[in-house]
Amino acid sequence: MNAPVHAKLASQLPFYQPVADECTVFETAWRQQLPVLIKGPTGCGKTRFVAHMAAKLGLPLFTVSCHDDLSAADLVGRHLIAGGDTRWCDGPLTRAVREGGICYLDEVVEARKDTTVVLHPLTDDRRILPIERTGEELQAPPGFMLVVSYNPGYQHVLKTLKPSTRQRFVALSFDFPLPEVERAVVQHEGGVDERLAAQLVTLAGQIRRLTGYDLDEAVSTRLLVYCAKLIASGMAVRLACRTALVEPLSDEADTLAALMAVVDTQFGH
Amino acid sequence: MNAPVHAKLASQLPFYQPVADECTVFETAWRQQLPVLIKGPTGCGKTRFVAHMAAKLGLPLFTVSCHDDLSAADLVGRHLIAGGDTRWCDGPLTRAVREGGICYLDEVVEARKDTTVVLHPLTDDRRILPIERTGEELQAPPGFMLVVSYNPGYQHVLKTLKPSTRQRFVALSFDFPLPEVERAVVQHEGGVDERLAAQLVTLAGQIRRLTGYDLDEAVSTRLLVYCAKLIASGMAVRLACRTALVEPLSDEADTLAALMAVVDTQFGH
Amino acid sequence: MNAPVHAKLASQLPFYQPVADECTVFETAWRQQLPVLIKGPTGCGKTRFVAHMAAKLGLPLFTVSCHDDLSAADLVGRHLIAGGDTRWCDGPLTRAVREGGICYLDEVVEARKDTTVVLHPLTDDRRILPIERTGEELQAPPGFMLVVSYNPGYQHVLKTLKPSTRQRFVALSFDFPLPEVERAVVQHEGGVDERLAAQLVTLAGQIRRLTGYDLDEAVSTRLLVYCAKLIASGMAVRLACRTALVEPLSDEADTLAALMAVVDTQFGH
Amino acid sequence: MNAPVHAKLASQLPFYQPVADECTVFETAWRQQLPVLIKGPTGCGKTRFVAHMAAKLGLPLFTVSCHDDLSAADLVGRHLIAGGDTRWCDGPLTRAVREGGICYLDEVVEARKDTTVVLHPLTDDRRILPIERTGEELQAPPGFMLVVSYNPGYQHVLKTLKPSTRQRFVALSFDFPLPEVERAVVQHEGGVDERLAAQLVTLAGQIRRLTGYDLDEAVSTRLLVYCAKLIASGMAVRLACRTALVEPLSDEADTLAALMAVVDTQFGH
Amino acid sequence: MNAPVHAKLASQLPFYQPVADECTVFETAWRQQLPVLIKGPTGCGKTRFVAHMAAKLGLPLFTVSCHDDLSAADLVGRHLIAGGDTRWCDGPLTRAVREGGICYLDEVVEARKDTTVVLHPLTDDRRILPIERTGEELQAPPGFMLVVSYNPGYQHVLKTLKPSTRQRFVALSFDFPLPEVERAVVQHEGGVDERLAAQLVTLAGQIRRLTGYDLDEAVSTRLLVYCAKLIASGMAVRLACRTALVEPLSDEADTLAALMAVVDTQFGH
Amino acid sequence: MNAPVHAKLASQLPFYQPVADECTVFETAWRQQLPVLIKGPTGCGKTRFVAHMAAKLGLPLFTVSCHDDLSAADLVGRHLIAGGDTRWCDGPLTRAVREGGICYLDEVVEARKDTTVVLHPLTDDRRILPIERTGEELQAPPGFMLVVSYNPGYQHVLKTLKPSTRQRFVALSFDFPLPEVERAVVQHEGGVDERLAAQLVTLAGQIRRLTGYDLDEAVSTRLLVYCAKLIASGMAVRLACRTALVEPLSDEADTLAALMAVVDTQFGH
Repeated sequence: MNAPVHAKLASQLPFYQPVADECTVFETAWRQQLPVLIKGPTGCGKTRFVAHMAAKLGLPLFTVSCHDDLSAADLVGRHLIAGGDTRWCDGPLTRAVREGGICYLDEVVEARKDTTVVLHPLTDDRRILPIERTGEELQAPPGFMLVVSYNPGYQHVLKTLKPSTRQRFVALSFDFPLPEVERAVVQHEGGVDERLAAQLVTLAGQIRRLTGYDLDEAVSTRLLVYCAKLIASGMAVRLACRTALVEPLSDEADTLAALMAVVDTQFGH
Repeated sequence: MNAPVHAKLASQLPFYQPVADECTVFETAWRQQLPVLIKGPTGCGKTRFVAHMAAKLGLPLFTVSCHDDLSAADLVGRHLIAGGDTRWCDGPLTRAVREGGICYLDEVVEARKDTTVVLHPLTDDRRILPIERTGEELQAPPGFMLVVSYNPGYQHVLKTLKPSTRQRFVALSFDFPLPEVERAVVQHEGGVDERLAAQLVTLAGQIRRLTGYDLDEAVSTRLLVYCAKLIASGMAVRLACRTALVEPLSDEADTLAALMAVVDTQFGH
Repeated sequence: MNAPVHAKLASQLPFYQPVADECTVFETAWRQQLPVLIKGPTGCGKTRFVAHMAAKLGLPLFTVSCHDDLSAADLVGRHLIAGGDTRWCDGPLTRAVREGGICYLDEVVEARKDTTVVLHPLTDDRRILPIERTGEELQAPPGFMLVVSYNPGYQHVLKTLKPSTRQRFVALSFDFPLPEVERAVVQHEGGVDERLAAQLVTLAGQIRRLTGYDLDEAVSTRLLVYCAKLIASGMAVRLACRTALVEPLSDEADTLAALMAVVDTQFGH
Repeated sequence: MNAPVHAKLASQLPFYQPVADECTVFETAWRQQLPVLIKGPTGCGKTRFVAHMAAKLGLPLFTVSCHDDLSAADLVGRHLIAGGDTRWCDGPLTRAVREGGICYLDEVVEARKDTTVVLHPLTDDRRILPIERTGEELQAPPGFMLVVSYNPGYQHVLKTLKPSTRQRFVALSFDFPLPEVERAVVQHEGGVDERLAAQLVTLAGQIRRLTGYDLDEAVSTRLLVYCAKLIASGMAVRLACRTALVEPLSDEADTLAALMAVVDTQFGH
Repeated sequence: MNAPVHAKLASQLPFYQPVADECTVFETAWRQQLPVLIKGPTGCGKTRFVAHMAAKLGLPLFTVSCHDDLSAADLVGRHLIAGGDTRWCDGPLTRAVREGGICYLDEVVEARKDTTVVLHPLTDDRRILPIERTGEELQAPPGFMLVVSYNPGYQHVLKTLKPSTRQRFVALSFDFPLPEVERAVVQHEGGVDERLAAQLVTLAGQIRRLTGYDLDEAVSTRLLVYCAKLIASGMAVRLACRTALVEPLSDEADTLAALMAVVDTQFGH
Repeated sequence: MNAPVHAKLASQLPFYQPVADECTVFETAWRQQLPVLIKGPTGCGKTRFVAHMAAKLGLPLFTVSCHDDLSAADLVGRHLIAGGDTRWCDGPLTRAVREGGICYLDEVVEARKDTTVVLHPLTDDRRILPIERTGEELQAPPGFMLVVSYNPGYQHVLKTLKPSTRQRFVALSFDFPLPEVERAVVQHEGGVDERLAAQLVTLAGQIRRLTGYDLDEAVSTRLLVYCAKLIASGMAVRLACRTALVEPLSDEADTLAALMAVVDTQFGH
């Protein structure tokens, strides 16, 4: 128990293709002990970027996928009963503070409000984590960094970050990578040649420019990699595109037909 | 305890009549370690298809019917108290990961949000399942596959799959089978002769084309099989159709009358 | 404990006056191992019919009145602590499966969604009941039958049976019995002579045809029997009608006056 | 423990002034083993009437004031832990069934739905109370009677009795008593002379006929008795009327002034 | 434990300046064993009045501030586990009944519905408190009195006292005291001279007559006392008025400016 | 356990630059034993001010960040089970009362209603804290002070302070500091020279005057300090402004472009 949950030491550096100056900004914020907010669409590489930076800076990384039922105790820790005895068990936030690592809250707007309030004393100049249940008050070491992310393009009627939380972070805005960058990612991760990777990235650009259809979100780099993998394993290109790029985006017959038309334009028919 | 809950080893291959290339797509996705999303109407054979593929690939299958109150602990596991002692009890998702089988979440949009978030680290390139309560982090073996399904035709105002979840899957779209396929299913499962099975499938097609009536969903292949069984056991055709094909579809007098008119056109009166 | 809760063996056959071919349909569905959905208004005899059929087929009957707070555990069972020890206690659904009897869920639309999902593996060709808490998976014996009922005339804004649940059943539609049948019931159960029973049934027909008044539901056969009992014990006819047929139907002065006018037309004044 | 909670044996007969044939109807329903629903405004004597009838019939009376958080266990009973031991403790409904008395649910529409469903098997011809937690099934003795009441004049947007519950009862409608009856009650309970009691009843009639003002409910007989008591103990009539008849009815200045004008007209100024 | 919680014996009489005949009405209601409802704006002295009357009548006083999460058990009592043993612990209502004192529920409309239903058997002629968990039924002694209060001027969309609860009380309406009374209170409690107290009361009157501004509630006597205390300790009059009379009333710039203009008119500038 | 949670003794005085007479008002309120309400926008220095005053007055400070799930027990304390034994554990409010310090509730409008009701007996002339679970009633010593804060500019549809709570406090209104004050803060905390600090403050003023854009809240002094820190550690001014002043304020492309235009006007391009 208390074994490494989400923590990964930087034994090897995860592949990450920088887009702009995001690595510099992240590292400067870390050196200045400022918390970072990352904004960007689904599947554009936010999680991969944080893993890359943690490895580069040699810091343990504790990742938490936020959701409606995530409570403050899930972050900070709780008493567990084991063998008739009660033992305190640190949560991922507490472990990141103790070990001086990065705590990364993915999709932070999904979390309950009481969860985000726990972050306040860690995000001003005090940099403390009070643990009310044990009476401890941890002073975060210089290495500790708090990173949160969310997707501004996906509208949440009731879920936003309160200004009083939001103004505690410096912010980085991510978008889909530039074509040459995305091509390199698809080629490297999907196991296809440069030409097919370029064709898939061109196709993605055409789909992302489609307007007037009921698309909650445009096709992600992750789906491009999925598509490349299917093709690399022998599936016909058109079927792979339908399976990995078209069907995951919509349930509307009109939208699906429009997306397949774009596919057929790109790859002939 | 910890006995096989939903798991069935592939001792015999469940009957499944392929419609298109769904078996190839499923198997390719499994080999490429990609999760699969199956979309399709009620009773069109999604569950049967997954059972068939699990048997064909020789994988244990863990099926979970999702609902409002399904929590992450129901999937991952929980500590149970037995005889004054606390023991950890794996949930179906954890068991599928440990045993390298298929975990199938039926009607995944019905589940609570915190349930779907648990799936995220299993559906990107990490393929891990962190079990926070025990401090374990399971690395999914190559055989493990996650499959989810839902019915896009039945509208849920508040229940949709978040794009950040949805874009983690390759997707297959199911529909009612082609007439010759459906006829074979009705004949095989319902125990009637080819001619009656063909008549029932024709009738189903006519009902499915009915518009302007308050029908939440069209008649399913399952109901056709029910109807065939009632006729095979000696019930009059018209009564069997009313009982198995008409009354289950609606409570509105007008709709019921219109449906019976279709029945009477098909089978004389 | 674990004593028969709702289960009644068919020592004597409860009185039931068939209306159409509902007994045949029910018995055929039972022989074909198909689940049955019964639709019909309040007090028309659905519960009595199921009790009659259970007795006729020699099956134990487990009745559950569904409501908002009925959980899956209420159906399947739970661990109870008794004398410092934990014992598993089967719920009525599990008992019906183990003993090969009928489990009857009355007003099933009132139940929570997670309750109805528990029924799914019992209503397709698998006919299994997984009990996650104990790790058991019960295979339903041939005698087991699932019966559910609800009242389509009473509108529930938020409560309907999901198509994916509904299409798992063959369905029977009940209505108030034909006059001669209802007269026999009122005479037999209410203890009045044939003429008075006939007059009460005529009155009920007139009330059921009243339109333009705020009546949630028409007068039931059960209320006719109540009225007959009050008269049989010496109460004046008009007072008995007001007490058993009029006041239970509405709180609106206009509606009550209209109903009493119908009474006075039938029985003079 | 398990001592008489709400139960009162009929050692003395509580004062009750009959209005019409309500005593006869109640007694007939009891002899015929039919449940009774009492409708009527606040403070018109419903609770007193039931107490009177219980005493007259020599039955123990178990009264439950219903509310939002009343659960089925509050009626049926629960296991309590005492001295390290678990003991079953009957609720008031179970005690009424065991002892063959009256269980009276006051303001039944306020109760949660799962509470009213518990009443169903007791209100049809089975007259049983299944206690799922202990595995018992009680057969109600002939003396047992279920009585429920509510106030149809006070509008509940979300709270009504379901038709399937409502049609299980014969019903009695109460209103404020006739002037001569109400005068006798005020004189007897309030300790004033006949003339003053008559004046108060006349005043109540005038207030009850006030229309066009924001009055949720008219003045009750109970408030008339309060007013009489204040006068009997020496308070000035006008101040007593303001305190007991006017201020309890409204918070609106216009309404209060209109009510005081009625008081001043009756008692001079 | 079970030490006096809110109970204060009347060792000294708290200062209270009567406004009208409220002391007489309260005492008469207490002698007649009638419960009292006090209506009035925030900070007008309701709590002080009840404390004064309890001391004058020599009764212990149990005060409960009501809120959304106040449950019936908070009033009646609960079993607590201490040292491995379970002990019953009376709540403030039960203690008031046992000791024959006053139980005062402040802002009773804020309480949950099940809380107010607990009061019903104590507020009719039975005057009993059934304690279901222990099986006790307490008969309230003559000294016991129930007092509830609320603020009719502050609108609650969903929170009102049900007529069936409200009509169980005689009612007293409070308002801000007359100028000469309020002046005496401000002088006595705030520690300022008569002239300044009179000026503050005049200012309060002007603020209370302000219309057309977004003021939830007018300035209370309590805030006047606060202002007097700040001035008495040396703060400039204008700053004291801004701090104690203006800023607590609103957050709107226009309203604050209008209030300060009234201050400057009264005290020059 | 029971170790200092949020309490900090005034070993060193935190830097605070007074804006007006807020220090005098605070100290006078503390000497007069009056509770204080602080209103003001996010990041304007409310928390820092309270820390400064606590240190100046030599009082321990207990800070609580309020949120939706903060219960009264979180403030007052609870019984914890440790080593099989139950021990009472004071909450921060109780500790502040016992030790005669300041209890500061940050963003008090976010707390549940039952939390604020707990404060009532501490905020009138009684100055008591009843602890119902232990039967204690604490009399607050002269040093104890209650301070609450909230942000009136950020609109809460459902969350406001009830007038009955609000009128228990004297109130201080904070705004962003005057330019010369803010410049000193940015220079001191951000580690930049006077000229750059002045430029950043001028820029903040321009951003705060922007109207017609979707800005929930204007840029705070805290973000200015963040920006200064990034520049001081070598980041280009424009990138630092984008990271610390622009991206944290909005997700709208139009708004972000308008903000960057203001940045470019200030710092050339």
